[in-house]
Amino acid sequence: MKLGMIGLGKMGYNLVLNLLDHKHEVVANDVNKDAVDDIKNSGAIPAYTIEEVVQKLEAPRTVWLMVPAGEVTGQVIEQLSELLDAGDTILDGGNSNYKETLERAAYLEEKNIHFVDVGTSGGVEGAREGVCLMAGGAEEVLQGNLNEMFTDIAVENGYLHAGEVGSGHFLKMIHNGIEYGMMQAIAEGFDILEKSPFDYDYEQVARVWNNGSVIRSWLMELTENAFSKDEKLDEIKGVANSSGEGKWTVETALDYQAAAPIIALSLMMRYRTLENDTFSGKVVAALRNEFGGHAVVKGD
Amino acid sequence: MKLGMIGLGKMGYNLVLNLLDHKHEVVANDVNKDAVDDIKNSGAIPAYTIEEVVQKLEAPRTVWLMVPAGEVTGQVIEQLSELLDAGDTILDGGNSNYKETLERAAYLEEKNIHFVDVGTSGGVEGAREGVCLMAGGAEEVLQGNLNEMFTDIAVENGYLHAGEVGSGHFLKMIHNGIEYGMMQAIAEGFDILEKSPFDYDYEQVARVWNNGSVIRSWLMELTENAFSKDEKLDEIKGVANSSGEGKWTVETALDYQAAAPIIALSLMMRYRTLENDTFSGKVVAALRNEFGGHAVVKGD
Amino acid sequence: MKLGMIGLGKMGYNLVLNLLDHKHEVVANDVNKDAVDDIKNSGAIPAYTIEEVVQKLEAPRTVWLMVPAGEVTGQVIEQLSELLDAGDTILDGGNSNYKETLERAAYLEEKNIHFVDVGTSGGVEGAREGVCLMAGGAEEVLQGNLNEMFTDIAVENGYLHAGEVGSGHFLKMIHNGIEYGMMQAIAEGFDILEKSPFDYDYEQVARVWNNGSVIRSWLMELTENAFSKDEKLDEIKGVANSSGEGKWTVETALDYQAAAPIIALSLMMRYRTLENDTFSGKVVAALRNEFGGHAVVKGD
Amino acid sequence: MKLGMIGLGKMGYNLVLNLLDHKHEVVANDVNKDAVDDIKNSGAIPAYTIEEVVQKLEAPRTVWLMVPAGEVTGQVIEQLSELLDAGDTILDGGNSNYKETLERAAYLEEKNIHFVDVGTSGGVEGAREGVCLMAGGAEEVLQGNLNEMFTDIAVENGYLHAGEVGSGHFLKMIHNGIEYGMMQAIAEGFDILEKSPFDYDYEQVARVWNNGSVIRSWLMELTENAFSKDEKLDEIKGVANSSGEGKWTVETALDYQAAAPIIALSLMMRYRTLENDTFSGKVVAALRNEFGGHAVVKGD
Repeated sequence: MKLGMIGLGKMGYNLVLNLLDHKHEVVANDVNKDAVDDIKNSGAIPAYTIEEVVQKLEAPRTVWLMVPAGEVTGQVIEQLSELLDAGDTILDGGNSNYKETLERAAYLEEKNIHFVDVGTSGGVEGAREGVCLMAGGAEEVLQGNLNEMFTDIAVENGYLHAGEVGSGHFLKMIHNGIEYGMMQAIAEGFDILEKSPFDYDYEQVARVWNNGSVIRSWLMELTENAFSKDEKLDEIKGVANSSGEGKWTVETALDYQAAAPIIALSLMMRYRTLENDTFSGKVVAALRNEFGGHAVVKGD
Repeated sequence: MKLGMIGLGKMGYNLVLNLLDHKHEVVANDVNKDAVDDIKNSGAIPAYTIEEVVQKLEAPRTVWLMVPAGEVTGQVIEQLSELLDAGDTILDGGNSNYKETLERAAYLEEKNIHFVDVGTSGGVEGAREGVCLMAGGAEEVLQGNLNEMFTDIAVENGYLHAGEVGSGHFLKMIHNGIEYGMMQAIAEGFDILEKSPFDYDYEQVARVWNNGSVIRSWLMELTENAFSKDEKLDEIKGVANSSGEGKWTVETALDYQAAAPIIALSLMMRYRTLENDTFSGKVVAALRNEFGGHAVVKGD
Repeated sequence: MKLGMIGLGKMGYNLVLNLLDHKHEVVANDVNKDAVDDIKNSGAIPAYTIEEVVQKLEAPRTVWLMVPAGEVTGQVIEQLSELLDAGDTILDGGNSNYKETLERAAYLEEKNIHFVDVGTSGGVEGAREGVCLMAGGAEEVLQGNLNEMFTDIAVENGYLHAGEVGSGHFLKMIHNGIEYGMMQAIAEGFDILEKSPFDYDYEQVARVWNNGSVIRSWLMELTENAFSKDEKLDEIKGVANSSGEGKWTVETALDYQAAAPIIALSLMMRYRTLENDTFSGKVVAALRNEFGGHAVVKGD
Repeated sequence: MKLGMIGLGKMGYNLVLNLLDHKHEVVANDVNKDAVDDIKNSGAIPAYTIEEVVQKLEAPRTVWLMVPAGEVTGQVIEQLSELLDAGDTILDGGNSNYKETLERAAYLEEKNIHFVDVGTSGGVEGAREGVCLMAGGAEEVLQGNLNEMFTDIAVENGYLHAGEVGSGHFLKMIHNGIEYGMMQAIAEGFDILEKSPFDYDYEQVARVWNNGSVIRSWLMELTENAFSKDEKLDEIKGVANSSGEGKWTVETALDYQAAAPIIALSLMMRYRTLENDTFSGKVVAALRNEFGGHAVVKGD
């Protein structure tokens, strides 16, 4: 099929190459003119403005967004909604909050513009070679061309039409919540190994766990890779940031009164890594001193 | 009544003064000769060895131990068990693990020596003015003299014969577990205040919470004290050690398959304060870098 | 001073009585006409509509709201904002989310109407006899009459002007977060006692802990009360609902990247009590069966 | 090589078949005579007593134990230690606590009997086709025959000589701790999906996550299998037991003062599934009623 792609960052750029490999026609746009020129050389149809994307497609049009979630996605959708016609379709492949997705779908529905949210996983390599896609949208919008296109660029069995609009971003959000928990579980295991009296080779540990054990997983393979480059991770600090999706998963758990301690704590332990010293620690230390006369550690 | 006290640290010393106030006779001993001399001046009968304690008491004897929990307590009990007669009674007022208490009770029972475990709370001031006591032991051992003596030195309604032997130390352990949870709850609350955009006076916050609110408590009074001395706790580090009882509470929860996340996490968050950087944090940071290309913070 | 009170539920009604005791004049209103008639008999000036409240006050007016947080509070503030004059003041004593408070303050500021948020603690008895108040608002609005009136009805040292607008509701929210943590800490302690081999009298346990121990607190006194009425709590189910403030505290912790595991888990363990069986438990049970052949418990 | 195998349960039996496939000679024993007869038909040398195992091997002997961890393993090792000669080797392939392993190694060392602990993962199918093995023991004991034999029966790269004695069981324990965390992370994710307004097909969700996503893993494959058999897990209850290793991991974290909230909570949330109603929940419900008059749910 022929479709537009707005956003040629690492993910968008590689998705276009993947689409071209599968004989789809792509009108490619980015705020960075150089990226458009580059992708043109790979066979995409260049578009230097969003207006040009719309002009170079024929109704009913399909435009895929791979731009930063939040404000930017909102602005592009608003702009597009004024350029597109009833019956056209916007795909949002970013990590948008599903609540915003539901609002945007309602807003676009008033203009009879279809909206499909596409949760995307698998990293840059996945985007290029075979991605994992979780799409939300109406059956009548996805059936046919869109389902076929998604299947083309996904790894085998790596595409799911998850349900109605919003369900794709929701599913991607939960995926990331699980990912947070799995990563922290792995991290805690190695932390205890590191504190143990034994002297393990962590790359070898990750390797043996990747071969035949219950916890073999892509994340453990990445753990093996990481230790192969820096055997005790001496070169980095244990500072772990987080993007929005872990937080949204916890907020969603709260909204639905779900007990999700592992996901919540995985996020909070990341927050804890952002601080060298904590006010909560000071309060506990001060209280121990107050009632038990326990010594405190003086500040610098 | 007349009884021996072995161990004249801060707690033992003040308990002796408290006992003397209530007209009990105390044969007082410590490995530190000076402490014995001091307490002698306050009216106690001095004993410079454990043998002397036993000699200066008449059967059936009562000897109260206020020595460090663990090995020292074990050694003193073993030594005493060879000097005492059947029908004598040992009181262990230390923070002993209840499992050791049960073993010691069984060991002493073979020699027909009674054993009473006395969980003690309220700090040094409590020991002097009115302590909180949770005793475990057989009804026939405690009734009469012991119950009266404990009631004398406790604050009003601050003495409980909790149950059979072991139940006193168990109850004190759980008390400390709850204390860990309450302290961490308070600490987290102030931590969020400190991160908020508002500019609170923490001493005043603790004061208002101590007057009429649901969370008024002795720990909040201590919080008020702590902030009155150092308004932002700038002078100390947030390093919070722990003694055995929090750990034992979590281990006991595991033994009885009890879900006790607040107590477990209160302890683990203290452990976390002992580290500037963590291996678990490094693993999470390395993994984020592996799959998402997220930047890591380089080590020094 | 003279002020209006809108909302004569348990809290509002008793606050009016408290205000009257301290010689303040109160124009009292409620949607329930009977409540207005009742409070009139106690000396309040009746007002059967919000318009009447405004008419019976002289500018600069002060109107205190004790109506349900959320939509109702929003509606009353909107209505009032059209009736009041520049220079008048609205007090919101409900458990409003501080984010809404900030929005309302900005909205009212455009009309030059002052806004003060008053976090209120201490229950019905506190409202009547001496309440705990945490107020947020501009110094020039609170100084003089308002500070004096709040001090009158608060328990001694139980009133704090916490900071600028929003800081009162924020502080009350954090108070509730700490309360959740303290309650769960107490609950876990008794849970382990109940699973232990010892046979405790929980009322007596709570009583001894309230006298001289580190964990003495109003919540432990309430625990003592609860066990005095039902010694093993056999008559109730362990189903624990939650109002908004615990959730908001966790959401706020997430907003400020604060690690607050005790407060988060206290809330989530309440959520857990709302379910007899969980889907998460089913997934774990199914997985154990898949890889280890562990038996599952069949459904009914 | 030639070795003895004591214990022909599911794991031991299949390990023998695996060993025979790789041309090793196995003297096989079990308390169940039928199992010995069966394995004889597959080519093993039968031994109906432990004495017979020892007699049918030539010094220096190697005897592998696949018997239940704990008391049984202890008894068999004690019995073997009296039958074996200096220079012989015992392999413990069970899920023994590493602390017991260290004690047994010290005990056997006095008799100059070598000891190797072999953590085993991969389930019954792994035992038969290619297992995952983590061995602890002295280099001079493992080098040569043992390393080769372990490599033969392991899946490719699925054998690791992890370090000195104890390190194998320790590593297996940590493996299981990580497994608990991963499983609970997955479970929480599906729990939130189930509470969401979307209508997911969980088998398809697990499948798409297994193809190209960050959380693809053997555990997610098992999740897919489980949902393929029972699409909403309606047939089972969410009751999740636990064997010793999760508990040991948490205890070990406590011993080394490691913050491991994910592993700890994964275990405690399983404990929570064992109860329909909780005493902790009752205490919280009773307290809410005490201070706020919140309604309680009456018992049956």
